Amino acid sequence: MSVASTLPAGAASSSRQTPVRVVLAGFGTVGRSVAALLTQPGDEVSLVAVVDRRAALKQEGWDGAGVRWTESLDEALDAGADVFVELIGGLNPAEQWIRAALERGISVVTANKQVIAHAGPALFALAASRGCQLRFEGAVAGGVPVIRAIESGLAGDTLTEVAGILNGTCNYILTRMEQDGADFGDALKEAQKLGYAEADPSMDVNGGDARAKLAILAMVALGVQAPAHAILAEPITDVSPIDFQYARRLGCTIRQISRASRDEAGTLTAAVGPALVPFASALARVNGSENLVKVKGRFGGETSFGGRGAGGDPTAVAVVSDVLAIARGVRPAGVRTAVEVDRVSSDASVPYYVRFTVRDRPGIIAALATVFAKHAINIDAILQEQGFPDSARPFMVSLDEAPSQTVRAALTEITAFDFHVAPPLAMPVLA
Amino acid sequence: MSVASTLPAGAASSSRQTPVRVVLAGFGTVGRSVAALLTQPGDEVSLVAVVDRRAALKQEGWDGAGVRWTESLDEALDAGADVFVELIGGLNPAEQWIRAALERGISVVTANKQVIAHAGPALFALAASRGCQLRFEGAVAGGVPVIRAIESGLAGDTLTEVAGILNGTCNYILTRMEQDGADFGDALKEAQKLGYAEADPSMDVNGGDARAKLAILAMVALGVQAPAHAILAEPITDVSPIDFQYARRLGCTIRQISRASRDEAGTLTAAVGPALVPFASALARVNGSENLVKVKGRFGGETSFGGRGAGGDPTAVAVVSDVLAIARGVRPAGVRTAVEVDRVSSDASVPYYVRFTVRDRPGIIAALATVFAKHAINIDAILQEQGFPDSARPFMVSLDEAPSQTVRAALTEITAFDFHVAPPLAMPVLA
Repeated sequence: MSVASTLPAGAASSSRQTPVRVVLAGFGTVGRSVAALLTQPGDEVSLVAVVDRRAALKQEGWDGAGVRWTESLDEALDAGADVFVELIGGLNPAEQWIRAALERGISVVTANKQVIAHAGPALFALAASRGCQLRFEGAVAGGVPVIRAIESGLAGDTLTEVAGILNGTCNYILTRMEQDGADFGDALKEAQKLGYAEADPSMDVNGGDARAKLAILAMVALGVQAPAHAILAEPITDVSPIDFQYARRLGCTIRQISRASRDEAGTLTAAVGPALVPFASALARVNGSENLVKVKGRFGGETSFGGRGAGGDPTAVAVVSDVLAIARGVRPAGVRTAVEVDRVSSDASVPYYVRFTVRDRPGIIAALATVFAKHAINIDAILQEQGFPDSARPFMVSLDEAPSQTVRAALTEITAFDFHVAPPLAMPVLA
Repeated sequence: MSVASTLPAGAASSSRQTPVRVVLAGFGTVGRSVAALLTQPGDEVSLVAVVDRRAALKQEGWDGAGVRWTESLDEALDAGADVFVELIGGLNPAEQWIRAALERGISVVTANKQVIAHAGPALFALAASRGCQLRFEGAVAGGVPVIRAIESGLAGDTLTEVAGILNGTCNYILTRMEQDGADFGDALKEAQKLGYAEADPSMDVNGGDARAKLAILAMVALGVQAPAHAILAEPITDVSPIDFQYARRLGCTIRQISRASRDEAGTLTAAVGPALVPFASALARVNGSENLVKVKGRFGGETSFGGRGAGGDPTAVAVVSDVLAIARGVRPAGVRTAVEVDRVSSDASVPYYVRFTVRDRPGIIAALATVFAKHAINIDAILQEQGFPDSARPFMVSLDEAPSQTVRAALTEITAFDFHVAPPLAMPVLA
């Protein structure tokens, strides 16, 4: 073991003499990990200030020397920041804080999916006009460097599709339901106990969190900028253990899947929600709180990126990697133009799984079949597990490929029948 | 659909008025795809010359206008190149050509694993001294942007392990053997017929190709620069259908696995060869000619990158993404110091699978067991499938975790016994 050599080219010009001064806002789980990474030995970066609403409290037991603790953003930025790391989350005041830093010409690193999904392009333009950077690797898929990989590593390709498991909480819950036959409520409680789900889990289980991440991926990978709220998000709350039993008989399990595609005309199709995925697919094998992002390119085919999508340390790696990129003078990869759209289609043509729960009586199948036939939807199979009472009998109908709009129209008619004891649950079956 | 907005920050300063002039050397499968991508509409890059030993022949049927065809590197570079793309493969003259371009201050993009594994650091230093870049995303895992993801996206972490499936030919062959019970020779012939294997497949099946890629990953991910030939490479040629049967009984399949790790003291442990991997692992689910790279970081845990590891189009995407990074003024990510080592350990302590093929007679198990006991190696299980003649009976011994050096020493002793009709085949069993 001997001589040390420097890799790769450009190192000489990109290394700095004085460390880059970092101001960190938000000292929660991720913030704490970021602070720990930034205060490791090394001369590239230096944490100079922490802004937190409860600075006095959070500071206790933390022994980083030379770090200023404050509740005031202005005071922190006045400490002479080169990079502002925003980890307070939510839209407000995070967006204003990011804007304030950029306006002073201070580069920003954030893991805030809501802000980037909502105001990304305006903030990128502001950063460009001030000659600084806005980086957000941690906003999607936590520690998995998918933003960089897409923006730079696949720049030579034209990407047409992106799909993945973007919410670790949902994936944890659905994995538990699959493996232990747990019902949704119990799996959620367990996720909360382990810190995988918040006290109010609605953003996760209703798809709001994944939708914001999908909007970012659509912007970065597909070059289409759509408001997150325009993307259809369906909750996983109605998925029950019986659905896993039926899915298994179709060779599938159930995952919360986010998917978006762009056609030649520039139309964005995107949706988030529970879906059946074949056991043989990579998506089915994502367990616990992991994330997986797959992209499809016209030339490179399918490429996938997986790893820990949440948690303090993995997200902190993404944040610190962004800080280091700025410290090393790496410019963002893309000259990428995102087309703004107001409307997002959710009208992909796919096979469907529908589970009905009915008060049993003769004629139910005939009634359903008549409605599906009227909408020109083919029934593929009907399955009914034994052991349920006549008063609440779940059975499954699988449908051949049909536009989701048509399937929804048919289900609206079917829901009007009086034999349901729970609303039908429809999920796409992905190839 | 309306206003177009520019993303992300830095775009203004990194976009150029005049296209970057590219000279391409090597017009094989990848070169042809690169040329096709570079001549798509757009004003960022312009293919100005192609160098190929058989320029006159290759030029036929290719209709890119304004491209100069030549057999001479000097003539091509004199065309006023900004970027030289080296796709001729092999060590010579590729290395000299890369050097010649860098010496003139021309940035280089290559997919040449042999050159980067062999002379990477010297060439990076040369590039740095001339103020230009040397990029090599296509050298490892084809279209999967793993180099960038590691260098930049995981810069904030300290990586300790890298493992993966880096050779699509071996993976195709082993997948066929797993799925159809084909023997090695037939699977290889099929791979050759489909263009997945060369007429001389030795670099692939003996591990030479994967070893060069692993050396590059060790340099980029672990910061250790070792000569590729110092990495133990074991061939997959002796794997037979019976090994898949036994592996299945252990819950495993067989893949060519490349793995490297670095301990706290800086020692590099690395090896390439066939290994048993559990069906439940991501590695077992890599099918056909796909690649998968997994890295483990101290903070971010395990992150994986998968996709098409070979073929013209995916590799071309990697090459063109590198060209675009240069065109867009993106500087390489890392100030990364690689420690040079001469020796690589292959002495990881792992469980082993050993398959013996013997002329059956009493006392064989006793003889083996005595040798293993002498070396303090525990036998986990012994399995013997029915239906083989006494004259050539294959059976399997699985061993508890033991240093591979010790296992090899025991096997050397065992190989001296006269009951073998084929040399024992030992493979590590990976967790």
